[in-house]
Amino acid sequence: MKLHGYFRSSASYRVRIALNLKGLTVEHLPHHLRKGEQRAPDYLKLNPQGLVPTLIDDQGDVLTQSLAVIEWLDETHPTPPLLPADPLKRARVRAFAMAIACDTHPVQNLKVLARLRQLGLPEEQVTAWAAWANQDGLEACEALIAHETGPFCFGDAPTLADLCLVPQLANARRFGVAVEKFPRLMTAEAATKSLKAFADAAPDRQPDAE
Amino acid sequence: MKLHGYFRSSASYRVRIALNLKGLTVEHLPHHLRKGEQRAPDYLKLNPQGLVPTLIDDQGDVLTQSLAVIEWLDETHPTPPLLPADPLKRARVRAFAMAIACDTHPVQNLKVLARLRQLGLPEEQVTAWAAWANQDGLEACEALIAHETGPFCFGDAPTLADLCLVPQLANARRFGVAVEKFPRLMTAEAATKSLKAFADAAPDRQPDAE
Repeated sequence: MKLHGYFRSSASYRVRIALNLKGLTVEHLPHHLRKGEQRAPDYLKLNPQGLVPTLIDDQGDVLTQSLAVIEWLDETHPTPPLLPADPLKRARVRAFAMAIACDTHPVQNLKVLARLRQLGLPEEQVTAWAAWANQDGLEACEALIAHETGPFCFGDAPTLADLCLVPQLANARRFGVAVEKFPRLMTAEAATKSLKAFADAAPDRQPDAE
Repeated sequence: MKLHGYFRSSASYRVRIALNLKGLTVEHLPHHLRKGEQRAPDYLKLNPQGLVPTLIDDQGDVLTQSLAVIEWLDETHPTPPLLPADPLKRARVRAFAMAIACDTHPVQNLKVLARLRQLGLPEEQVTAWAAWANQDGLEACEALIAHETGPFCFGDAPTLADLCLVPQLANARRFGVAVEKFPRLMTAEAATKSLKAFADAAPDRQPDAE
């Protein structure tokens, strides 16, 4: 399989963790987002949104959207599972993941921040916007798992929730959010530190890292 | 079951269509988003993000995030299915849904537009922002299903993709986007018009419609 991505893209980071947890090796095809390589005509044919990641499976099929890719991986390579078996628990894990993947990350991604700059906002207001989006999202995430058994977001093994949380915390720190205010999220992140699958997926471990 | 929602919320609208397609009747509990009722302390206990919808099932369990709610409905009430059976096709449907639910809708929701106003942007720039987000998202959606058999987004029955498309088109029109430029999306929307489940879920058919 081939993964079109970018070392610092948190959506690519989610998929890298999933692939590692499933024990799957892929060829990495980096696209430098700050240089706009995700808007190249050949890439847009694969991913009309001009976003990373895009996964190409062994049959050459094209898969986009990190959460859809991870659900597909979980359906086609079920061990270890990234979602619980019980429907209600699955819904809770997905809701946490989507609080990040729908309501936090897209509000602070490169495209939105570039648009704010185009509107004439000074750099400190652009950074403050990104910090606000992260702060707001993580505050909700902390509440969503406050009563869940740990140490991971949901129980004693990583799920789709942890795959979304760890990359988002990296973004939040980059924008200056004091993430240590979120004790339950910190517990979950600490649990992932012991897993090679998470460590190997980190931005600074990728071939295109700067 | 009970559905906390708002007539004009496109995330609530998606869940209303799903419930109707599954033949499920729920009690509707409206929260007036423009009056900030989704930030009431009692509601935040159910939904820490302060967003609608929230579904309460017959056991009193709380479900948040429209796509997670719809996946749960599909797992617990499988007929008619809202996702294809084949993993690759499921991934394509989910990716289309997420192109809307992750990358389009949250970039133009009330919270983001309110933040733009707080930053001092004039109303025409706020509307232009919302139009841009819709235009950009729908352009990608048109490409994502250009080669899919119709008349619905994916084949001859509605899926999660159509449940996301129809409410987003309503938003796009509200912000002045010329949606007739997207012929494949128009075909899919036209197919849904024949279904009572879609018609009954429309904003102007809800008890809290203004």
